[in-house]
Amino acid sequence: MSKNDMLPIGSTIGIIGGGQLGRMLSLAAAQLGMKTAIFCPDPQSPAFDVTPNITIAPYDDEAALKLFANSVDVITYEFENLPLESIKLLEGIKNVAPNSRALAISQDRLQEKQFLSKNEINIAPYAAVNNEEELKAAIKKITLPAILKTTRMGYDGKGQRTIKSLEDGLKALKEFKGQELVLEAFIGFEREISVIVARNKNGMVRDYEAAENVHQNHILKTSVVPANINRIVAKRASRIAQHIVGSLNYVGVLGVEFFVVPAASDALDKYPTLIANEIAPRVHNSGHWTQAACLTNQFEQHIRAICNWPLGDPTRYCDIKMENLIGDEINGANEKLESGTQPHFYGKKQARVGRKMGHLNSIIK
Amino acid sequence: MSKNDMLPIGSTIGIIGGGQLGRMLSLAAAQLGMKTAIFCPDPQSPAFDVTPNITIAPYDDEAALKLFANSVDVITYEFENLPLESIKLLEGIKNVAPNSRALAISQDRLQEKQFLSKNEINIAPYAAVNNEEELKAAIKKITLPAILKTTRMGYDGKGQRTIKSLEDGLKALKEFKGQELVLEAFIGFEREISVIVARNKNGMVRDYEAAENVHQNHILKTSVVPANINRIVAKRASRIAQHIVGSLNYVGVLGVEFFVVPAASDALDKYPTLIANEIAPRVHNSGHWTQAACLTNQFEQHIRAICNWPLGDPTRYCDIKMENLIGDEINGANEKLESGTQPHFYGKKQARVGRKMGHLNSIIK
Repeated sequence: MSKNDMLPIGSTIGIIGGGQLGRMLSLAAAQLGMKTAIFCPDPQSPAFDVTPNITIAPYDDEAALKLFANSVDVITYEFENLPLESIKLLEGIKNVAPNSRALAISQDRLQEKQFLSKNEINIAPYAAVNNEEELKAAIKKITLPAILKTTRMGYDGKGQRTIKSLEDGLKALKEFKGQELVLEAFIGFEREISVIVARNKNGMVRDYEAAENVHQNHILKTSVVPANINRIVAKRASRIAQHIVGSLNYVGVLGVEFFVVPAASDALDKYPTLIANEIAPRVHNSGHWTQAACLTNQFEQHIRAICNWPLGDPTRYCDIKMENLIGDEINGANEKLESGTQPHFYGKKQARVGRKMGHLNSIIK
Repeated sequence: MSKNDMLPIGSTIGIIGGGQLGRMLSLAAAQLGMKTAIFCPDPQSPAFDVTPNITIAPYDDEAALKLFANSVDVITYEFENLPLESIKLLEGIKNVAPNSRALAISQDRLQEKQFLSKNEINIAPYAAVNNEEELKAAIKKITLPAILKTTRMGYDGKGQRTIKSLEDGLKALKEFKGQELVLEAFIGFEREISVIVARNKNGMVRDYEAAENVHQNHILKTSVVPANINRIVAKRASRIAQHIVGSLNYVGVLGVEFFVVPAASDALDKYPTLIANEIAPRVHNSGHWTQAACLTNQFEQHIRAICNWPLGDPTRYCDIKMENLIGDEINGANEKLESGTQPHFYGKKQARVGRKMGHLNSIIK
């Protein structure tokens, strides 16, 4: 790297994963004068439309990974369900951001919870479950209803079941046979928020205002900013997010999801409590609003961070609503665009049920 | 095309020209879920970094043009110095926007002036010059100082000379031997402004607020919005721009440059006069500020227009300054980025003198 370890303009960013996040990262890299190379096993990857440099290979293809690493100047990834060994292999050859420690923590719910607890960040009560005996003990400790989740490979509601009775638990145990599980207490939250934070190698940190998120069928449907939360709560969420990236020596953009839980009527602290639900070591769906409301959006911010450039301005310039277009909601979305809406379509060929096909950023007047 | 002649998401936009404008058009198309194919003779085209579909061939290579036209769904171009015959050939195969009439007018200063005059838009006094005799007559008519320009292929100050004496004129006549010329009166303007306007096939028109432009060595250096002009003048500039796209049955984004000339002390109309200087049938350098200050920037607007989608919101959300990075100003520009600045670097390999290498959009606080 050049002066101060900053990657020069014209360098090549390697991106692992070819979905919409990889696509939008690649577009941001191009805005900054960078080239990109994208690695994805799926020949139909939407990100393959925006770069001439593609690698089609499985995520554990060592030879392909080595070739890829040697063809780029820095490596990042668009999602956390990657083989940890592959990222470690890449780390041995080139600078990888975020680092494999952040990836290891975020791709395993148990490690994630242990990390958050150790950092004195509130999380839902939980217990590891590997068999019937542990399930029964966990139910006793956590009480029902609760949620049984696989520790790994869960996203968009995949790998989780609501447990209202021991029978539910036993059934789920069978379904998830062979996978490590965790039983989480059901949190009666008043709303869900998330904070997107960025950190570069020099330790510069910038975070965006919290977004308020609504899920449908376990998939993010809308993010609205400003969130309907107290300023003190917003400040706390920001501090937690900043603490996490510092603690992980993290480089890049990271998303933290929180449940906002009303204070108990007899609590000394009258403000709602923040329960950290999940951390994502990457650009995050709930940060797409930054494309329309901020001078520097989360994709540009991530590229700046991993190149160790000065981070950009996260100030929000308008009230904004991001809405995901899921499955066939994409059909004809271009024909009914309203003024005040900034569309982002991912160019995916098939509009399968539950598949994220695009999103709309709309100014709230 | 589908319903209402709208091009569906996932279609391919063909772009003639692989410079920074083609690159930014391609990025905007990708945001909208479109694929792109780019045609340019230069193998080092910056736009080739952002698409897998490239054609390297001269602009008059008929076979290559035909292949290209048949591989895309609509065709546009990033600059006006293209062989008109090539665009007409493409028009015979696919929808081309802007149309060849707009191109013909804008690539020939005489035709442009005749078009503007016919539409009762003020322009600088001028006279065609093809030889010494016509030069002398033109000087008599226009008076000196004046500017002698080639009617074709001029940009960034290329193909023009300031004429202060007959000797200057004779010398320039020799230099430009064999080219059609035009002598233009020197306009004592107080400032230069430009308006970016878009029109789709359905006739929907949206224009952006006028920008105030400053040139250095005949190359645009900065655009600031709002321009320091009276609201009435701004409204007039907007009406003229809207009239031009209507009159040309134009589809796409178009830029109009004006000189703002103080009213004569004895004028009935006390407002400054607008003198149209040039029209550009494409996205325009003086519209780059829209990337940072508007929900829909000029590149997205152009793609929407040529796909016949509803146009986006041109409202400006903040005060903004665009600054071009020319030649070696690009060096280290990434290292000294300030908060409040949105960088756009073009990824060009060589920072030659006078070459546009990037631009910075900075919020004015």
